[in-house]
Amino acid sequence: MVVHGGGAAADRVGAELGRPPRYLTGRGGRRSRYTDAAALDVLRLGILGRVKPDLVAALTGLGVRAVGLSGVDGGLVTAVRNKPARATVDGVEVVVRDDLAGRISSVDPAVLVTLLGGGFTPVVSPPALGAGGGTLNVDADRFAAALAVALSADWLVVLSDVPGLLADRHDPASLVPEVPVDALDDHLAVADGRMKVKVRAAAQACRDGVRHVVLADGRVDSPVLTACAGAGTRFVKEHCVEAS
Amino acid sequence: MVVHGGGAAADRVGAELGRPPRYLTGRGGRRSRYTDAAALDVLRLGILGRVKPDLVAALTGLGVRAVGLSGVDGGLVTAVRNKPARATVDGVEVVVRDDLAGRISSVDPAVLVTLLGGGFTPVVSPPALGAGGGTLNVDADRFAAALAVALSADWLVVLSDVPGLLADRHDPASLVPEVPVDALDDHLAVADGRMKVKVRAAAQACRDGVRHVVLADGRVDSPVLTACAGAGTRFVKEHCVEAS
Repeated sequence: MVVHGGGAAADRVGAELGRPPRYLTGRGGRRSRYTDAAALDVLRLGILGRVKPDLVAALTGLGVRAVGLSGVDGGLVTAVRNKPARATVDGVEVVVRDDLAGRISSVDPAVLVTLLGGGFTPVVSPPALGAGGGTLNVDADRFAAALAVALSADWLVVLSDVPGLLADRHDPASLVPEVPVDALDDHLAVADGRMKVKVRAAAQACRDGVRHVVLADGRVDSPVLTACAGAGTRFVKEHCVEAS
Repeated sequence: MVVHGGGAAADRVGAELGRPPRYLTGRGGRRSRYTDAAALDVLRLGILGRVKPDLVAALTGLGVRAVGLSGVDGGLVTAVRNKPARATVDGVEVVVRDDLAGRISSVDPAVLVTLLGGGFTPVVSPPALGAGGGTLNVDADRFAAALAVALSADWLVVLSDVPGLLADRHDPASLVPEVPVDALDDHLAVADGRMKVKVRAAAQACRDGVRHVVLADGRVDSPVLTACAGAGTRFVKEHCVEAS
């Protein structure tokens, strides 16, 4: 199964529509996309209207029986909308009430099980179904982690444009080969904003039972096989390691 | 199963992007959307990024286990791209070489069979997969007819904003209750451009074995049940009527 986002494609659609992305910084300093209705529309246009059909068509050309889905399809991923919260937007402190983003509250993997059983490869992405109806933006890495857990997947390979978690983000040679999830805080300290979300999502999947969780480089040839062969940063439960 | 288009939504996206729809008129006088790369992008944004997720979310809210698909998914609908052809565009006669539209060449209903078997309701639309890769625009009514045939459907109900085929298009009371497909030409003569495509698609589905084919009013309450109960224009094979 493939899980993807589409933030860069959404930013291009947004630029064409004269709606550049905006970000909000929460009290804890966490920065996230400010997804008002116009921005959620842009995200959907980029992810569902551009990235996904191109990805599915390309995979089909390679002989994969790819089927595109979002969290809305078959009630796959439901999210609860974020409560109004104080945040800084464009340098101004405001109470954000119109952010159409949320946290994943439940996953119903039935549609994935049906398609996988039929020999298809689901190509899945946000948005999620809002618990109160409509669609909500959710983080794609958390989305991938939640699906891996719901499917009892053996592997979750999170690909990005770095070799994995780096002890020094400016030194690609400083790869952290292993993160014990019980010592997560030490490792979060070295991760920047975007990587923090990936590390948290990966750690959650590991804690929730996905046996092999790897954060690896998506820019190399055969990135998934390379990650499975040992590249990147692996997430391990301390007691699993002791037991083996 | 639900099949939808999204021309109106695409036109709105196009207007927001400063790309109004253009049409080409072929030698036979047939008018169709001119789908160069920028226009195909607009169609995909409107259909896949706006109409489909809203439709799937709304159906889900009504308790339907809806799953959105396009012709690309699972290699469902493959089309062969139209050859370069003389046409009139914006009043100028040109040879159109960059129209990313095509004719349906094959349907593989496996992904629909799998989802229907799993208790899901596919919500399907163009684009189709191009035989040479990528995506192609195809007519949504022909798309619906081809799927009905491939699934050996008992019913194809084609809904629009008129009561059915009208003998006088300005008189809603002039409904033609029955069209024998062997006398199609007489009936095509009374249909305007958009309706001609619907009539041809409906007749093709009837000829290819879909037992009940109806062109009916989508603006009424319970439009599908109303159509199944006898409203609208039915398409019949002459010899079927004689045999009954």
